[in-house]
Amino acid sequence: MNSSSQMKDNTNEKEFINCVYNKLVKYITEPKSKRRLSKFQQPDSLKEQLNLQLDKEGQDYDTLLSICDTVIQNSVNTGHPLFLNQLFGKIDNVSLIGTWLTSALNTSQYTFEVAPVFTLIENSILKHMSLKIGYNDCDAIFCPGGSISNMYALNLARSYKYPNVKTVGMNNIPKIAIFLSEQAHYSFSKGASFLGFGLNAMYKIRCGENGIIIMDDFKLKIKKAQEDGYEPAIVIAVAGTTVTGAFDPIREMSQVCKQYNMWLHVDACHGGCALLSTKYKHLLDGIELSDSVAWNCHKILGAAFQCCAFFTCHKTLLKRTHSASATYLFQTDKCYDVSYDTGDSSIQCGRVVDGFKLWLMWKREGDLGLEKRVDYILSLAEYLTNELGKKSHFKILIPKPQYVNVCFWYIPEKLCEMDQNSEQYKDILSKVAPYVKRKMMTNGTCMVGYQPLYTHVNFFRFVISHTLASLESIDMFINLIEKYGEEFNSEINF
Amino acid sequence: MNSSSQMKDNTNEKEFINCVYNKLVKYITEPKSKRRLSKFQQPDSLKEQLNLQLDKEGQDYDTLLSICDTVIQNSVNTGHPLFLNQLFGKIDNVSLIGTWLTSALNTSQYTFEVAPVFTLIENSILKHMSLKIGYNDCDAIFCPGGSISNMYALNLARSYKYPNVKTVGMNNIPKIAIFLSEQAHYSFSKGASFLGFGLNAMYKIRCGENGIIIMDDFKLKIKKAQEDGYEPAIVIAVAGTTVTGAFDPIREMSQVCKQYNMWLHVDACHGGCALLSTKYKHLLDGIELSDSVAWNCHKILGAAFQCCAFFTCHKTLLKRTHSASATYLFQTDKCYDVSYDTGDSSIQCGRVVDGFKLWLMWKREGDLGLEKRVDYILSLAEYLTNELGKKSHFKILIPKPQYVNVCFWYIPEKLCEMDQNSEQYKDILSKVAPYVKRKMMTNGTCMVGYQPLYTHVNFFRFVISHTLASLESIDMFINLIEKYGEEFNSEINF
Repeated sequence: MNSSSQMKDNTNEKEFINCVYNKLVKYITEPKSKRRLSKFQQPDSLKEQLNLQLDKEGQDYDTLLSICDTVIQNSVNTGHPLFLNQLFGKIDNVSLIGTWLTSALNTSQYTFEVAPVFTLIENSILKHMSLKIGYNDCDAIFCPGGSISNMYALNLARSYKYPNVKTVGMNNIPKIAIFLSEQAHYSFSKGASFLGFGLNAMYKIRCGENGIIIMDDFKLKIKKAQEDGYEPAIVIAVAGTTVTGAFDPIREMSQVCKQYNMWLHVDACHGGCALLSTKYKHLLDGIELSDSVAWNCHKILGAAFQCCAFFTCHKTLLKRTHSASATYLFQTDKCYDVSYDTGDSSIQCGRVVDGFKLWLMWKREGDLGLEKRVDYILSLAEYLTNELGKKSHFKILIPKPQYVNVCFWYIPEKLCEMDQNSEQYKDILSKVAPYVKRKMMTNGTCMVGYQPLYTHVNFFRFVISHTLASLESIDMFINLIEKYGEEFNSEINF
Repeated sequence: MNSSSQMKDNTNEKEFINCVYNKLVKYITEPKSKRRLSKFQQPDSLKEQLNLQLDKEGQDYDTLLSICDTVIQNSVNTGHPLFLNQLFGKIDNVSLIGTWLTSALNTSQYTFEVAPVFTLIENSILKHMSLKIGYNDCDAIFCPGGSISNMYALNLARSYKYPNVKTVGMNNIPKIAIFLSEQAHYSFSKGASFLGFGLNAMYKIRCGENGIIIMDDFKLKIKKAQEDGYEPAIVIAVAGTTVTGAFDPIREMSQVCKQYNMWLHVDACHGGCALLSTKYKHLLDGIELSDSVAWNCHKILGAAFQCCAFFTCHKTLLKRTHSASATYLFQTDKCYDVSYDTGDSSIQCGRVVDGFKLWLMWKREGDLGLEKRVDYILSLAEYLTNELGKKSHFKILIPKPQYVNVCFWYIPEKLCEMDQNSEQYKDILSKVAPYVKRKMMTNGTCMVGYQPLYTHVNFFRFVISHTLASLESIDMFINLIEKYGEEFNSEINF
């Protein structure tokens, strides 16, 4: 039975599919700058345009087509060269086709039985990536997001030290501490809570102005934790912080970890792709000495969102830690080698196929194509930093770009002569970025993030991922900041 | 820069996209039974057919096309009427188009800023579903899988009782117990470990032969937990167990929960869709009295895999429990009402758009179309049960079908006169299902699950989801079991 509602349709299913396909293929292949970046509307106003209500009766395909149009037109064009808002952007079209294929085949990655091809492909791409890390033999799996990858690290580290924690719980093992950069991703806070460590178990290591941890403070924090009755157990090295793109010194940290018998996890969700570049892989020097790594490929590589891999050099630990051996799924008397069933390495049951879209893109590009992609993106960030350095109205947080992140302020003319330490200066400066952002969004010209940090008031955080951007579009970005910044300046009233 | 490798291509990108699209559209619109269900090969043999290796140089589009062909041909045709192996099956084509659209638009669901339309649509579909549950006001979110939804329930329940657990961890709150059916899904074991409760905190309630919990045993287990020094805190009612499709008595359980001030979570991942049917919603009687619900729509409804929603009647608790308030993402001085940013309700950072594909399908079908779908699928399970009951070589585990699950044995002729309690009988019977399954897989004719349970040796577990199946295909299924079962019989040697 085809249980679709039995209404009269002027358009049939195939025509509907074709029409949406044509819209989408136009969307992904046309020059991205041709289409407005966004058409920002306040939630209430947008609601009026969308027919959100679900009813007893179904709708015909023509209505659905018109809905798809409205959705496309009112969504953010994340492939636009001036979408500089998040750690993802333009989707790689081959990777997109990979997701279309896996969606159409509608299966779960838990057993070889129902995902034979995708199991072998997942193994293949993870093995290829693990060699870039420098792990000779390892266990690895795709996760629904880097945050969950980071949580896998916390769980494995705990289980490695106290294998019985799986059974007895956190109540019955000693208090263990997690050491991490104060600029580490917020997923570790979420993880520390979710996994039952508690936020108090996190010892945040102070960073220099560049966002890299201060090794002396790391050692102080270990002492502090011990004084507090915690056992030093887990260390996070960040390879590419979210805000400033800083890389912690993995090799040095690894020595401390050895000394205290601590697990070293590298959060390379953001910075992992530097491993593909001869020029930049030194940023992750020592990563092969770690116990685990989280690495996302939907960020600067442009694989379809979301594409996150977790690796550990401790073969079999994923399965030992996460397994529940459900008899309805992981029968031991199957007609093939059941070590190919990956489901018990995951905390999930059903698991979306995330490996194929990356593998297919990698097939297309080869190592060299992806290396070129990484180098190109990093060159754009460098270009921006240099250009901003030449301009008097811009002040850069970190003079040398550390990755694809460039953090800076636009200083309005009227502030130039003011005391930078005065409250009034800070107050006015903090309003520049939200003002400029609002202008950008309402005009649909550009999107870029901003935020405060420590004593620093709101600054812009430029980030760039796989992109159709060029030096010209970086210039356009600067021009836009200047334009809206001047508008802000003219509106300042003392 | 379009950073694809600069090789000579006979096919260009648009042609490549079109060719894959044509293959996929054929795949999803042709009669599903026309295409073989599977072409099972052992891993090593399959590896030889896939060119798994990734190289320095990239490949041309023609190679990619041939890869896509091989992938499609060697994957399991989960839309086939005789794919009866998992709790998902034929994808709804409108829902598939929904995923194609969201993939192409490549965004994350964490802020209204980058997902304005999808935020409103997620709110809309979750609200619509929550009214089916009977929650008047609630908080809800899509999760990457029902397992993670169930873990959300454990975390919220813990945090509701001990709000400071987020900060102080499991070490510093009393030991709390989780009560659940011994037939509850294995994700609770995974969750109890992952969240730091430990497996020992789980008190498994015995079930009757039908897979429904025995209320008296529930009460005994509460006493037992208290004796062990645990505080009774969390109760799971299963609405549709994985193996037998049993529904626990939610209303009755809710009374016990009130008495002990325990959180009641309904795991309706499998059975939630019965809420859409006037005829079957009584199965979840009392669900509106629960504290939280997990409900998957990629199962019998046929939404694209994976589509899992979590609901709690405790408004704001998701955000209170999961928030980390990252300043780079959740600025408080944005130009819109930031309560529309859903990211801090999740344990994820980036989150795939899972609501749209369901909402679009629901638009198409309406409540009535989906109700018809549920009723139809359940009627097929009922038909199978009735047919098997007429045949002497079949023995059914639970005479009355409880949902879409039908568990049964095929009894080979040579066993019919044997003592059913003898070890030889059990040993031979346990081999029937693996034998039949192997035959089905190597012939690519059908896929159905099997497993042991308690003292029961391997039986078949038939399950059915949104499907193109008909009474005729159910007959074909029975015929196949008989055919391979007879082959098994002829090979038995005493």
